[in-house]
Amino acid sequence: MLWNRRMSLKLMLVKHEDALLGMQLNFGIGCVAVNSYMKISVERERVANDPKSIMPAAFVSFKTRWGAAVCAQTQQSRNPTLWLTEWAPEPRDVYWHNLAIPFVSLTVRRLIIAVAFFFLTFFYMIPIAFVQSLASIEGIEKAVPFLRPIIEKKFIKSLIQGFLPGIVLKIFLIVLPTILMLMSKFEGFISISSLERRSASRYYLFNFVNVFLGSIITGSALEQLNTFMKQSPNQIPRTIGVAIPMKATFFISYIMVDGWAGIAAEILMLKPLIIFHLKNFFLVKTEKDREEAMDPGSIGFNTGEPRIQLYFLLGLVYAVVTPVLLPFIIVFFCLAYVVFRHQIINVYNQEYESGAAFWPDVHGRIIGALIISQLLLMGLLSTKQAAQSTPFLIALPILTISFHYYCKGRFEPAFIRYPLQEAKMKDTLERAREPHLNLKGYLQTAYIHPVFKSAEDDEEEEIHGKWEHDAELVPTKRQSRRNTPLPSKFSGSSSPSLPEVVEERGQP
Amino acid sequence: MLWNRRMSLKLMLVKHEDALLGMQLNFGIGCVAVNSYMKISVERERVANDPKSIMPAAFVSFKTRWGAAVCAQTQQSRNPTLWLTEWAPEPRDVYWHNLAIPFVSLTVRRLIIAVAFFFLTFFYMIPIAFVQSLASIEGIEKAVPFLRPIIEKKFIKSLIQGFLPGIVLKIFLIVLPTILMLMSKFEGFISISSLERRSASRYYLFNFVNVFLGSIITGSALEQLNTFMKQSPNQIPRTIGVAIPMKATFFISYIMVDGWAGIAAEILMLKPLIIFHLKNFFLVKTEKDREEAMDPGSIGFNTGEPRIQLYFLLGLVYAVVTPVLLPFIIVFFCLAYVVFRHQIINVYNQEYESGAAFWPDVHGRIIGALIISQLLLMGLLSTKQAAQSTPFLIALPILTISFHYYCKGRFEPAFIRYPLQEAKMKDTLERAREPHLNLKGYLQTAYIHPVFKSAEDDEEEEIHGKWEHDAELVPTKRQSRRNTPLPSKFSGSSSPSLPEVVEERGQP
Repeated sequence: MLWNRRMSLKLMLVKHEDALLGMQLNFGIGCVAVNSYMKISVERERVANDPKSIMPAAFVSFKTRWGAAVCAQTQQSRNPTLWLTEWAPEPRDVYWHNLAIPFVSLTVRRLIIAVAFFFLTFFYMIPIAFVQSLASIEGIEKAVPFLRPIIEKKFIKSLIQGFLPGIVLKIFLIVLPTILMLMSKFEGFISISSLERRSASRYYLFNFVNVFLGSIITGSALEQLNTFMKQSPNQIPRTIGVAIPMKATFFISYIMVDGWAGIAAEILMLKPLIIFHLKNFFLVKTEKDREEAMDPGSIGFNTGEPRIQLYFLLGLVYAVVTPVLLPFIIVFFCLAYVVFRHQIINVYNQEYESGAAFWPDVHGRIIGALIISQLLLMGLLSTKQAAQSTPFLIALPILTISFHYYCKGRFEPAFIRYPLQEAKMKDTLERAREPHLNLKGYLQTAYIHPVFKSAEDDEEEEIHGKWEHDAELVPTKRQSRRNTPLPSKFSGSSSPSLPEVVEERGQP
Repeated sequence: MLWNRRMSLKLMLVKHEDALLGMQLNFGIGCVAVNSYMKISVERERVANDPKSIMPAAFVSFKTRWGAAVCAQTQQSRNPTLWLTEWAPEPRDVYWHNLAIPFVSLTVRRLIIAVAFFFLTFFYMIPIAFVQSLASIEGIEKAVPFLRPIIEKKFIKSLIQGFLPGIVLKIFLIVLPTILMLMSKFEGFISISSLERRSASRYYLFNFVNVFLGSIITGSALEQLNTFMKQSPNQIPRTIGVAIPMKATFFISYIMVDGWAGIAAEILMLKPLIIFHLKNFFLVKTEKDREEAMDPGSIGFNTGEPRIQLYFLLGLVYAVVTPVLLPFIIVFFCLAYVVFRHQIINVYNQEYESGAAFWPDVHGRIIGALIISQLLLMGLLSTKQAAQSTPFLIALPILTISFHYYCKGRFEPAFIRYPLQEAKMKDTLERAREPHLNLKGYLQTAYIHPVFKSAEDDEEEEIHGKWEHDAELVPTKRQSRRNTPLPSKFSGSSSPSLPEVVEERGQP
């Protein structure tokens, strides 16, 4: 079921032990579900009755959109760290482990992760160089002397010397998104979508420092940091700006090797294919197992999006300096559009819908890329014959920044708030059209911890099966609909009548 | 009347042409006053009926604190730039000229002022140097040749050469707070308190760059900017840090000349004294005129507070480096405490009460001063024998910044929001205690443009006179109570009964 906007507006996450009581006091409404976090699903009964396993966090549903909008946007208690109200993510999007982290702990975690990310970006070469030194011929011979006769053979020796150091770095770069995701999880975000958003912006920063800057000023990020700390601030754009035209050919080949080939690999889906065949060979016993093995998972926003944005940055930077790079970028974007459109419609099972919550991040990075390209252009021009007129270019970044602030004020509230005018209008409309609408049936089972759900799985499957026979919005060749069944009637423009709602009860 | 917290919680400023209609739609309450802005008070009648002179802004009062708290904290309309709701400042605090500036215009104004302030801080010496060159002996002789015989006299010549350049700079520094206040007014703040807050932070920045940094690295701010742009970032704290111990004696004399003498001048109140005697001689005709001439005005938060914070910064920076400076700072703060306490109780007539809205700014500047002192200490230590252990000091600014973020999350909401829990509690209490409380009488006349008020002045005076006979909280020798009469019974813990409220009607 696509995420149902109407539901989301009526649900909110409240963190506090007295949350339920307070909600009733302030809004005169009842609560729907307090979910316990359990480790052993066998002891479900015992744990459910144990007060220690009750989380100090609750999903609260409201009778009206207006009430939910008010509660999400206001401060509830005198101490702003005790009661926190947020819009609830959609049920599939909830990251259950982080629901009950208190405010002070969140502040400390954010600090720790900020410091850790700084070290990861600028000092990641140190452990890798250490491992690389171990993985050399001498290192291996010291560690496992009995392998010496094999290693000393000419073919294997050249293989180790040629590939091993590169492979260590490559393995790190493959593991990097997972590390960043773990960091985001430690930071305490409560929805998978916000975890991916934060990981994406970290991955973009890492790529910006280590791929973009790292290629222009050859050397590791640590050396760059050293260079920048010792250089004067107005010298930095000049140093980079002058190096940019010289690196154009490198980036053209980078776009072809990493960009075009990456898109081709995306459509090949080699990794899921291998995993499927391995699973098919060793694990699959029933038809249901096979369908589970076929599941390609959801599209990786935390790696795909920042990579595309890096090409956008390259395009902006080189648009004025070396326009010959632009056709390569355009080909990349055309390929990416065709391939990702196909993949999203026909292949991936999206885990959640977050209602375009990714866009403000993307917009911010585009603005950042614009400012970077303007600064580097200024640095480059100041070394050419246009040096006298360069200071006038300073108007560009200032105007860009003020445009960013304007957009922040004008459009960002649409992503984080919900205007009372609209809430009231929709409430009134709904009351007039369907005075007997009752969503309690749906809400009772919507926000239940996955542990409690296993028993209902089979029923769900049946319902899913039924959906597949209905009309489809976009014709798709997708094999499995485990996570993304067709859009529910809830999200359509016409509201369902009471019997339909009750029928859909129990669906996640 | 001290600003009445209960009133303020029920009033809110709404900016929109359909504001009144929309408010009624969302909250089902009526509006109290739409005030027109007029230029000619003689044509009051005609203008009051002219639709063109009606502002697209309104003060809205609510039946409950809860309603006001909800309305102030939420977004009302789909387009967040059309309807803006804010807590209303208290009636005396309203800056009427800026009430109706639309959102886009505000963004543009803020950008213009930010650029203008940058140029004011770093390039203010250019026009002053130009005027100084005009004000030299040769300049005057060229401009007004007939004065040559007088100027050529030895005494006057030395006077001009010695004092004139300094006087030009001094005049600029005296006019500076007024310039900053004009900039804040152009920026579009709607209350006098926020105007003063913004001017204060600008004045602090100007003093930090031109007094603190300007004295340490001798040279104008423009030259400093040049130095910093050409220096590497990790060199800047070192350059300043090394110069700091050498400037200790200068700052000791600065504290004595500017600080101690400034406090002494504060208690002398020379300027108001002269102005009073001039007015007394030329203008005063009746006893009321004399009382008006006696009015010393309100304490200048926009100049006094940033100056005190500059001494706080000096104390923090020199606490570790040259502790001998600290006794001078302590003497300054003791003097300032005694003098300002006396002045606030016995002399000044505070124009408004803003409910400690100044504190978050002050706190932010203290944190900033802490971080600056830590960075400079690191710069200094890295040149001494402790160079090896200096990097560990980097934990200090990181911890300070995270403390700042913690305070922002934990305590700042107390200044900008109003928790629903408390609002509801107070509403319930009030309904139980005084079911017939009716504030409409007070509210009808509270937010009226000063132009409309002149006719009621005499009545007010009578009421003020009555207040003076009541018991006083702090015994005061103040002569005039034009702006700060004794605290009203509204702000006390016990609420007034209906007759008292009606009696106080018409008081600003």
